[in-house]
Amino acid sequence: MGPIRVTVWGENVHEDRDPQVRAIYPDGMHETIAAGLRDLLGAGAKVRAVTLQQPEHGLPQDVVEATDVLLWWGHIAHDEVSDAVVDRLQEAVLGGMGLLVLHSAHYARIFKRLLGTSCSLRWRNAGERELVWTVAPGHPITHGVPHPLVIEAQEMYGEHFDIPAPDELVFVSSFAGGEVFRGGCCFTRGRGRIFYFSPGDQEYPVYHHPDVRRVLANAVQWAAPPAREHGGAPGAPESPAGWFER
Amino acid sequence: MGPIRVTVWGENVHEDRDPQVRAIYPDGMHETIAAGLRDLLGAGAKVRAVTLQQPEHGLPQDVVEATDVLLWWGHIAHDEVSDAVVDRLQEAVLGGMGLLVLHSAHYARIFKRLLGTSCSLRWRNAGERELVWTVAPGHPITHGVPHPLVIEAQEMYGEHFDIPAPDELVFVSSFAGGEVFRGGCCFTRGRGRIFYFSPGDQEYPVYHHPDVRRVLANAVQWAAPPAREHGGAPGAPESPAGWFER
Amino acid sequence: MGPIRVTVWGENVHEDRDPQVRAIYPDGMHETIAAGLRDLLGAGAKVRAVTLQQPEHGLPQDVVEATDVLLWWGHIAHDEVSDAVVDRLQEAVLGGMGLLVLHSAHYARIFKRLLGTSCSLRWRNAGERELVWTVAPGHPITHGVPHPLVIEAQEMYGEHFDIPAPDELVFVSSFAGGEVFRGGCCFTRGRGRIFYFSPGDQEYPVYHHPDVRRVLANAVQWAAPPAREHGGAPGAPESPAGWFER
Amino acid sequence: MGPIRVTVWGENVHEDRDPQVRAIYPDGMHETIAAGLRDLLGAGAKVRAVTLQQPEHGLPQDVVEATDVLLWWGHIAHDEVSDAVVDRLQEAVLGGMGLLVLHSAHYARIFKRLLGTSCSLRWRNAGERELVWTVAPGHPITHGVPHPLVIEAQEMYGEHFDIPAPDELVFVSSFAGGEVFRGGCCFTRGRGRIFYFSPGDQEYPVYHHPDVRRVLANAVQWAAPPAREHGGAPGAPESPAGWFER
Repeated sequence: MGPIRVTVWGENVHEDRDPQVRAIYPDGMHETIAAGLRDLLGAGAKVRAVTLQQPEHGLPQDVVEATDVLLWWGHIAHDEVSDAVVDRLQEAVLGGMGLLVLHSAHYARIFKRLLGTSCSLRWRNAGERELVWTVAPGHPITHGVPHPLVIEAQEMYGEHFDIPAPDELVFVSSFAGGEVFRGGCCFTRGRGRIFYFSPGDQEYPVYHHPDVRRVLANAVQWAAPPAREHGGAPGAPESPAGWFER
Repeated sequence: MGPIRVTVWGENVHEDRDPQVRAIYPDGMHETIAAGLRDLLGAGAKVRAVTLQQPEHGLPQDVVEATDVLLWWGHIAHDEVSDAVVDRLQEAVLGGMGLLVLHSAHYARIFKRLLGTSCSLRWRNAGERELVWTVAPGHPITHGVPHPLVIEAQEMYGEHFDIPAPDELVFVSSFAGGEVFRGGCCFTRGRGRIFYFSPGDQEYPVYHHPDVRRVLANAVQWAAPPAREHGGAPGAPESPAGWFER
Repeated sequence: MGPIRVTVWGENVHEDRDPQVRAIYPDGMHETIAAGLRDLLGAGAKVRAVTLQQPEHGLPQDVVEATDVLLWWGHIAHDEVSDAVVDRLQEAVLGGMGLLVLHSAHYARIFKRLLGTSCSLRWRNAGERELVWTVAPGHPITHGVPHPLVIEAQEMYGEHFDIPAPDELVFVSSFAGGEVFRGGCCFTRGRGRIFYFSPGDQEYPVYHHPDVRRVLANAVQWAAPPAREHGGAPGAPESPAGWFER
Repeated sequence: MGPIRVTVWGENVHEDRDPQVRAIYPDGMHETIAAGLRDLLGAGAKVRAVTLQQPEHGLPQDVVEATDVLLWWGHIAHDEVSDAVVDRLQEAVLGGMGLLVLHSAHYARIFKRLLGTSCSLRWRNAGERELVWTVAPGHPITHGVPHPLVIEAQEMYGEHFDIPAPDELVFVSSFAGGEVFRGGCCFTRGRGRIFYFSPGDQEYPVYHHPDVRRVLANAVQWAAPPAREHGGAPGAPESPAGWFER
């Protein structure tokens, strides 16, 4: 098998508007995320970054077909993502493409489409310490991740998080203010694997954090489809009796 | 607590077009389903039936708000259900309304909306015997249901059924042709409980079957929200530090 | 259906040895737990308390057969529970008896027997505030329980908690020191329902807390078998072809 | 990472007693299973076979510690496996060793110990056709496996199978007599991954079947711990406040 073909999608709006964000992520959050994956996965992955502002948001059909795992960071421009791209991504995930949904992308159209719930949560941006606790210690996404993973300053995300019960709950966070959050959640939809990971507000240097980078690299490996191929869209064939007999 | 307020929604199209269906269900499938619930739940439920052809498909806001559990049977007119009603039902389920999705309603817009997958499956209409096996024998939906439940003639539904892994798998069917199907599946979305039950093609008298009626009555009781009240739509409140302290 | 027949099992050792515990629970922790259930469930339950020190630990075969839901609190005398009683309880749970496992009973022999893991956890007894957060807001065990449930002083239990992934995760706690814990977990084993609830160290008046009492009362209702009957021990019948045909 | 270190455990009793079994498996079932893994995994695995009759059943501490994935086939001599070996295996699985449990080993002591239920099932040995259907098509264990996998003659195993709900349900079988069975089930216990796979009665050449061999090879890869190392037995450390701070 060849390297995992990874596409990092960045909304890329805060970086233009907000000097504080640009100071932390001078090349954009998507490029920092991509660089982390390149560092940790080396020849095991081929990583590119695309943005909302590109034609078809950087995700034309051929790019999606050549993507094994898509990472998605968005926050204030969810509504600018077109129906056509959301439809395309949903079909790709059901066919086997992995999807990593990051922080404020809990409200991304593709995430809400795939989960079917409101994906709402409680929040407070007060630069609090977040502790990310592993509750599934044998899970490959946790390999090499400290327990707890400590993030000195982050936006608080708290329960209730209105998602379906995850197929596997991997991480639970607590915050200095006492709230908890199911911040590392695995889902399977169709043939595709989805991982939601909550750390990553644009105002803090979370994607420079070595342990966060490790989680994302592990998750890319976990979410990649076997044999680097999508399985095709599911179908509903009429099947005459004995169709499976040799 | 008062009786469970149940609304049975019928697409009510086959009954008009197809003498074979009308012969089996002279008052419409929805009325047969409703009658079964009334027989088995007695004073424990208050059951009405509504149809696609009514204004707002029989589901204006006040009816939805006064519904604890909604049953949904549809087949050839899924696309005629309006966006407004699908939105309203999604919000109601996330707020706590129970939903029972029957047979060909695997393709109902509200089911696909809530699950996020294609909900496709394999099928063959050849009047085969279906055996419905209990795989969760302590589950309240199975109470009083024989193992297996035998349906002499039914449409075959077979795997792969493109749904998220159910939160609880209750029944698995086999068919004379050898196929299997996860035909009794529980999901929770938001505060609401959803039960999909596959037996029930319009060409066979499945909803007259006493054991099928028992399953539906059990499922109504399982899906009813505590205290007969919806919990309200989930929200995303900004929460100052210590908001929960007395 | 008659009232739920509840048996509260108390280890009843700290109460004798430790004046601090006796001051909080002068009649024993089991009697305080039982009183809370009687208050909240009224005629809906018939509650008795038994202890380790009684013959067969208060759980002879006839008592177990007449128990719909058993609550279990133990801490320092797990090893004194006999093989015969553990075997009896395992068979009863698999046959349909509900089981509520409280706090330090994570190490109870019957809990480890039913779960198959070490059930170990991290701990610190420092009288810290525990916040119990609901992550499954539609679940019947959460009905009427505040979010968060605040316990002013408790022993800290923290992850990793070495249990199988619960069938339903209902509550997650955080502690003043920053740890988190999956403190409200539902399991089904055989026909029986099991609920583990972590608040309840003997040094704090946790079972006098009205919200904790509410959780236990809800959990008793959730864990009670349909029709107040055990389903009998599972079997492994040799089954000739067509055994299920009429 | 080096090759996966695989140990195939064979009960090795039928092979001695029963000419029919010896004709199918002249070197023992364990050697046929091991040969299949060697063929399919090549340099990716290092496979040995051991048997009940060896000292410590072929599983002394050093062999267990040097095993990433253990396969287990047993039938009529479950009770001959010693407490010491069952304890050792349980600790190894909780620490991260993968375990594949085959066919009649549903009653193996280590399987019942880890699952906590009776693991009973319905059965009939009539040489019926078994169809193994994939219900989790993106799961790595299904990669390259036909849908359905057809086994011309097998013992029937049918529901109810008294196991905890699997963490992932991968395969469901049907039999010519109409029964169904959850025959491909994934569990995680502690750090370890467990896969139960039902095809494989000693009277039929199931482990020569190329698709069955593919399932087992896939499952070995799925069950192998990250970095080929066990995580150590879980512990219950007392943790002073702030123990995790740098």
